[in-house]
Amino acid sequence: MKKRIRDFGVEIGTMERGVRNAISDVPGVLVGHVTLSDGAVQTGVTAVVPHPGNLFREKVAAAVHVINGFGKSVGTVQLEELGTLETPILLTNTLSVGTVSEALVRYMLEQTPEIGLTTGTVNPVVCECNDGWLNDIRGLHVREEHVRAALENVRADVEEGAVGAGRGMSCYGLKGGIGTASRIMEIGGQNYTLGALVLSNFGRQDDLQVGGRAVGREIREQMESAAERERGSIIMILATDLPLSDRQLKRVAVRAGVGLARTGSYIGHGSGDVVLAFSTATRIPHESLEPILTLPYLQDHFLDPAFRAGAECVEEAILNSMVAAEPVTGRDGNHRGSLREYL
Amino acid sequence: MKKRIRDFGVEIGTMERGVRNAISDVPGVLVGHVTLSDGAVQTGVTAVVPHPGNLFREKVAAAVHVINGFGKSVGTVQLEELGTLETPILLTNTLSVGTVSEALVRYMLEQTPEIGLTTGTVNPVVCECNDGWLNDIRGLHVREEHVRAALENVRADVEEGAVGAGRGMSCYGLKGGIGTASRIMEIGGQNYTLGALVLSNFGRQDDLQVGGRAVGREIREQMESAAERERGSIIMILATDLPLSDRQLKRVAVRAGVGLARTGSYIGHGSGDVVLAFSTATRIPHESLEPILTLPYLQDHFLDPAFRAGAECVEEAILNSMVAAEPVTGRDGNHRGSLREYL
Amino acid sequence: MKKRIRDFGVEIGTMERGVRNAISDVPGVLVGHVTLSDGAVQTGVTAVVPHPGNLFREKVAAAVHVINGFGKSVGTVQLEELGTLETPILLTNTLSVGTVSEALVRYMLEQTPEIGLTTGTVNPVVCECNDGWLNDIRGLHVREEHVRAALENVRADVEEGAVGAGRGMSCYGLKGGIGTASRIMEIGGQNYTLGALVLSNFGRQDDLQVGGRAVGREIREQMESAAERERGSIIMILATDLPLSDRQLKRVAVRAGVGLARTGSYIGHGSGDVVLAFSTATRIPHESLEPILTLPYLQDHFLDPAFRAGAECVEEAILNSMVAAEPVTGRDGNHRGSLREYL
Amino acid sequence: MKKRIRDFGVEIGTMERGVRNAISDVPGVLVGHVTLSDGAVQTGVTAVVPHPGNLFREKVAAAVHVINGFGKSVGTVQLEELGTLETPILLTNTLSVGTVSEALVRYMLEQTPEIGLTTGTVNPVVCECNDGWLNDIRGLHVREEHVRAALENVRADVEEGAVGAGRGMSCYGLKGGIGTASRIMEIGGQNYTLGALVLSNFGRQDDLQVGGRAVGREIREQMESAAERERGSIIMILATDLPLSDRQLKRVAVRAGVGLARTGSYIGHGSGDVVLAFSTATRIPHESLEPILTLPYLQDHFLDPAFRAGAECVEEAILNSMVAAEPVTGRDGNHRGSLREYL
Repeated sequence: MKKRIRDFGVEIGTMERGVRNAISDVPGVLVGHVTLSDGAVQTGVTAVVPHPGNLFREKVAAAVHVINGFGKSVGTVQLEELGTLETPILLTNTLSVGTVSEALVRYMLEQTPEIGLTTGTVNPVVCECNDGWLNDIRGLHVREEHVRAALENVRADVEEGAVGAGRGMSCYGLKGGIGTASRIMEIGGQNYTLGALVLSNFGRQDDLQVGGRAVGREIREQMESAAERERGSIIMILATDLPLSDRQLKRVAVRAGVGLARTGSYIGHGSGDVVLAFSTATRIPHESLEPILTLPYLQDHFLDPAFRAGAECVEEAILNSMVAAEPVTGRDGNHRGSLREYL
Repeated sequence: MKKRIRDFGVEIGTMERGVRNAISDVPGVLVGHVTLSDGAVQTGVTAVVPHPGNLFREKVAAAVHVINGFGKSVGTVQLEELGTLETPILLTNTLSVGTVSEALVRYMLEQTPEIGLTTGTVNPVVCECNDGWLNDIRGLHVREEHVRAALENVRADVEEGAVGAGRGMSCYGLKGGIGTASRIMEIGGQNYTLGALVLSNFGRQDDLQVGGRAVGREIREQMESAAERERGSIIMILATDLPLSDRQLKRVAVRAGVGLARTGSYIGHGSGDVVLAFSTATRIPHESLEPILTLPYLQDHFLDPAFRAGAECVEEAILNSMVAAEPVTGRDGNHRGSLREYL
Repeated sequence: MKKRIRDFGVEIGTMERGVRNAISDVPGVLVGHVTLSDGAVQTGVTAVVPHPGNLFREKVAAAVHVINGFGKSVGTVQLEELGTLETPILLTNTLSVGTVSEALVRYMLEQTPEIGLTTGTVNPVVCECNDGWLNDIRGLHVREEHVRAALENVRADVEEGAVGAGRGMSCYGLKGGIGTASRIMEIGGQNYTLGALVLSNFGRQDDLQVGGRAVGREIREQMESAAERERGSIIMILATDLPLSDRQLKRVAVRAGVGLARTGSYIGHGSGDVVLAFSTATRIPHESLEPILTLPYLQDHFLDPAFRAGAECVEEAILNSMVAAEPVTGRDGNHRGSLREYL
Repeated sequence: MKKRIRDFGVEIGTMERGVRNAISDVPGVLVGHVTLSDGAVQTGVTAVVPHPGNLFREKVAAAVHVINGFGKSVGTVQLEELGTLETPILLTNTLSVGTVSEALVRYMLEQTPEIGLTTGTVNPVVCECNDGWLNDIRGLHVREEHVRAALENVRADVEEGAVGAGRGMSCYGLKGGIGTASRIMEIGGQNYTLGALVLSNFGRQDDLQVGGRAVGREIREQMESAAERERGSIIMILATDLPLSDRQLKRVAVRAGVGLARTGSYIGHGSGDVVLAFSTATRIPHESLEPILTLPYLQDHFLDPAFRAGAECVEEAILNSMVAAEPVTGRDGNHRGSLREYL
C-alpha cells in the first residue's frame, strides 16, 4: 500500500481526520482514474463525482475561486452565475481539455436524453495542469474512451500519486499528482466532513516546506539538480456535507490558498491555481415545478471549522500526492524523483 | 400632489404596479428625507429602511452591483463578503459620505449597546452622487442632526423629486433627484413585490429617452442650452419580498442597468452607477445559537419576473425623479429646469 | 447583396460609421465562416481573427465581461488574469465547444511548434450559443475540418445573417445569427475605429425594439405565434485600434449591455450574455527578453466616445444579424422567419 | 531602538532587504502616526503617503485585493474601476472610518481648490481594524485634528509596534500593530524595491507560527491564558517602484495572502483581510489635455520576484509589528503582552 505523509511522522494541523482521510469520506463522493503510461505518453484522466445520481437532474451547490488564473479550466462562467455543478469534475492535461469536454458532453447526453431537446444544454467542468515535462502533451493522447473509463472506474477508495490526470505532473521539482485528505468538523453537536483532492503540478524545488520545515533546498542539493523557476499549476477540489451556499463555498475555497502557501509556494506567475468547492448537503433539481425550495443554511459565524479544515486538507493532500507518487521517466528521458525517497 | 411619469401618458413596461408604485410597496420598507435648501446650499440626506426592527440584530440578504465604479459609496466590501445588510441605506452628496457614515455609526451604537463591546462592529452603508453643480458641495453642509432627522422621518409615503439627497442633483441636463416605482410579480400562484428607489444625477441632455422616444436633443434646443458631456452618477436601490439569496439579488441588480440604458444613458466614464438590492423575505439573526437556519429559496429558473420588474422599476423611477422635481437654482446662480415643463 | 438595418431607414445612434460598417473596419481584423445546413443540421463555426500574425507570439490586450453567465464559453479564466488574447476567437453551438477547442488547439500547435515543448501551453477562446431549436445540437455535427475551414476563410468582407455559428440561432422569436457594425471615434484629433460582431440568439418576441420602437408584439400577432419566455444567449465581440488596457477594455465591454438593452432584452435567466473586447493597438510578445515595454495608454477621461461606440455598434449589429438572416427551417420542421419580412 | 524579528535570529525568506527594511525604501513613500493612549483610549491614525506631491493631481496606479471582506474599508469601489489612488491611505479603528474620511476630504479640499468646483470630487481611502478589546471604540475618540497630525508627521523613518492606528490592536492573542519590511528585486539588470506596511489585528493564539515554527500554543500555555477563537483583521499595504499596471498590482496583492498564511492564520470568518498595492513608477495626471500617455509596463513573466517579495515582506512585517509592540493595558483593564517577551 502506498505511503502517506503521516507515515513519515508529519502531522498537518490539529483536526480529526475522516476514516479514509480522503475526499470520499464525504458521503457519496467517488473518484476514478485512467492512467496512460507508455514511454513519452505519461498522462491520464481523473473523475470526481459529487454523488452517484444524475448530476444534471440533481445539481449540487458549488463555487470556484481562482487564485492565479494562468490556466485553462472550463465550466467556470456558469458555475459562478448559478452556483451549481451539473456534471462530474474531470481533470486532465492542459491541451486535452477540449477532448475531455466533448467526451463529457457525450456522456451526459447519453445519461440524460432531455438535454438539448426538451431542456437546455449542459455545462461540462474540466480542469487541468500542464504535464508537458514528462508527457508528450502535444500528442493529445487522451481520447474519449479514457474519459468514459475514468467515469466508470469511480470508487470511494481513492488512489493517490502518479495516477490518472496526475500521471505526468511535477511538484516542487519532484513527482506530483493526485493527493487527498479529509477532516471532521463538529458544529452544533453534529459531525460534518470536509475533504480535498488535489492535482499537484507546481512549485520551485527550493521552496518546498514539509510540515513547516523548509526542506526543498536540501533535497535539491542532494539530487544535484539546478534551481528552476516556479511554474506549473494546481487544481484543488473541496467537498463537504455541510449545508453551504455558493457564497459560503467560495469563502471556504479561499482558504485552500492557506494550505497551498504552507507547502512553500509563492503562487508563481505561470501557475493556474484554481479551487472548486461543492456541498452535497442538498440536491438542487434542474427544473422543479415548485418555485420555492426550503434549504438548510449554515450561519456564517459557524464557518471557522470549515475554513480550518479546508486549509489543513489542502496542505496534507499536496504532501500526500508527493509521497504517494512513484518516480516517473517520460518524454525525452525527463525524470522526476519521489519525495518519499528524501524524507 | 406631485406628478409622475404616468400622468404624462408614458407607460413603462407591461407589469402591474404596486398600490403606491413605490419601493414602500414592499412591506416594511420605509423612506425618509431631510432637505437643505438655502441659496448655495442645495443638498440633503435620504434614508431607506428595509424593515422597522433593528437591522444589526436582524439583517436582510443583500447584494451590490457596480455598473461603473467612479463613485465613493461605502459599505460594499462587507456586503459582498457576507451577503447581508445591517444598517439602513443612507444617500447623500459625495463629499458628505464620511460625515454621514459617522452619524450612522453613532445612531447604530445608540440603538445597539452590544456593538463594539460584546460583539463586533457595524458596517454603515452610505451611497452618494455629486450635486456640486447646484450645491456648495465643498461646504460640507450635511451634519449629524440631518442624518438623525432623515432616519426619524421614515414613512411609507415616499416623496419624490428635489428632496433629500436628491435636492441638488441633475439628470440629463434637467433637475434630477429621488424617484421610485414598483411592480407586482406572480410566481407560483403567489404575488410578490419588487420596488426601486433611485437617486438620479447622470446623463447628457441630448441622450434622454422617455418611453423609447429620443426627446433630449429637442428639449435642449428648446432650452437653448449647449451640449454637455455625460457625467454624474446614479444610485439604484431595489427591494423585494421574494426569498432571494445574495447571489440571486446580484442577478436582479444587474437588470437595473437595462432600465438605466432605456432612459438613454451610455454609462459615461464619470458616472458612479451603483445598484443595491435586498430581500425582506427572511431576517438573518446577527449571531444565533443554532448553527443551521432553514430558509426559503427561489429556484433560479423562476427569476425572470424579478429581472423584468427590476428593469421596469428603474426606468420608471428615473423618469419619476425627473418629472417630480421642481426647478432649482443654487450655487452661483446655476439652474436646472424640470422635465415636467417640457413634456 | 443582403440588406442591413439602415436600408430600412433605421438609424442607430449618432456616430459616424466605418467604411464597411463592420468589425473588420478595425485594421487587421478578419472574420471567417463555415456553415452546415442540411435538414436537421443547421449550425456552423465563425472565426474572428484580431490580426493576421501568430496570435500566440504576438498577443493583443483583451477583456471579458459576463453580463449573465448562463453559458459555456471557454478561455475566460486566463484572459481575466493576464489581460491578453492568444488565439483567434471561435464561435459555435454550445455542445460543440469541446470539439472546437480541441481543433483550435491542434491548429495553434501546428502554427507554433514551441507550444508545450519549449514554452507553455495555449489558451483557446471559444464562445457559444444554443441553436438547439433549429439544429440537431445533440448530434455534435461540427468537426475539426469545419474549424480549419472557418480559420482559412477569414476575410475583411464580413457575411451576416444565418451563416457560420449563426446558422441555427434564433433572436426575439425570429431568425438570429451573425451581425456586425462599426463606429469612428475622433479623440485628440486622431480617428480610431471600434467595431462589434455579435452572435445573436436571445430575446422574447414581444420585447423586440427596433430603433426605440416596440414592434415585437405586433410582429408576433402578425405571425400568429404564441408568446414564449425569454431564453437564449448572445456573444458580443468588440474590437478597436484605440490603445486600451485590459481594465479599459472591460469598461468598454460593459457598455455592450446598453446596446443589448435597447433592442428590448431584459437579460433573461437562461441567457449566456458574454462580451469579449480586444485592442489591436499593441502586440504584446509571448515572452520577450526585455522586461519593460513602453506602451501607449489612453487616459480614462477620454473613453466616452468608445463607450458610446460600443453601445451603438452592439445595438446595430444585433439588428443587422436579424435583417440579414434568411428564414430557416431545421430540426423537426422548426422554423424561424426573418425580421426583414416584417419591417 | 525597537527590536525587529531579525534581532531574534528569525530570517524570513531569501531576498535582500532594503536599507531601512521598510515601506519607505520605495522612494517617495512616507508614513506618519498619531497615537492616542490614555486609559481606556488606546487608538490612533496612521497615514501612508505614496509620494510627496498632490495625489489628486498626480495619481498612482493601484489595486485592492480583498482576502476576507468582513471589513469596513472605504474607497475601494473607485480604486477598482479606475486603477488609481488619489489620496494618502489612512488607517484607523473601525468605527472611526467615517470621521477620518471626512477629515481626509477636508484636507484634500484645502490642498486642491479645484475639487468639487471645476473638476469632480475626491475618493478618500481609509482602512481599519477593530481595536475594541483594548480601546473604548464606542467612544469615537479619533477626531479631525488627529488625522491632520498624522498627515503632517509623515517621514521615511517608520515607527513600528503599538503606535498610530496600531495602538490598540491585538495579534495572535498578543499585542499587534504597525509593522513594515522591504525587499530588493533585480529585474533585467535593474534594482527595484517592494515594501509592505501592515496593521495587524488578527489570529488565534494557538496558531501563531514564527519562521515556520508553531510557537503559539506554547506561548499561550506559558501565559496561562484560555484559547480564543480567531477574530480580528489585517490591512496590508504594498508599495513598489516597479512599473506595474493595476491588474499586475492586483496579482502582487494576492501574494500578500501567502505571507499572512505563513504566520499561522487560517483567515477566520470575522477577519477583514484587505490588501492595497500601488506603484510609484508613474504619476498619472488627474486630467491631461493629451489623450494618450506612453507608459512603461513590466511584462508579466518577469513578475515572480515581485510575488516573492510581496509574500516575504508581509510575513516579516507582521512579525515586526508584534515584536516592536510594547505590552498595552486598556479598556476595562484588558491587557496584551508582547511577543518579544516570549521569543
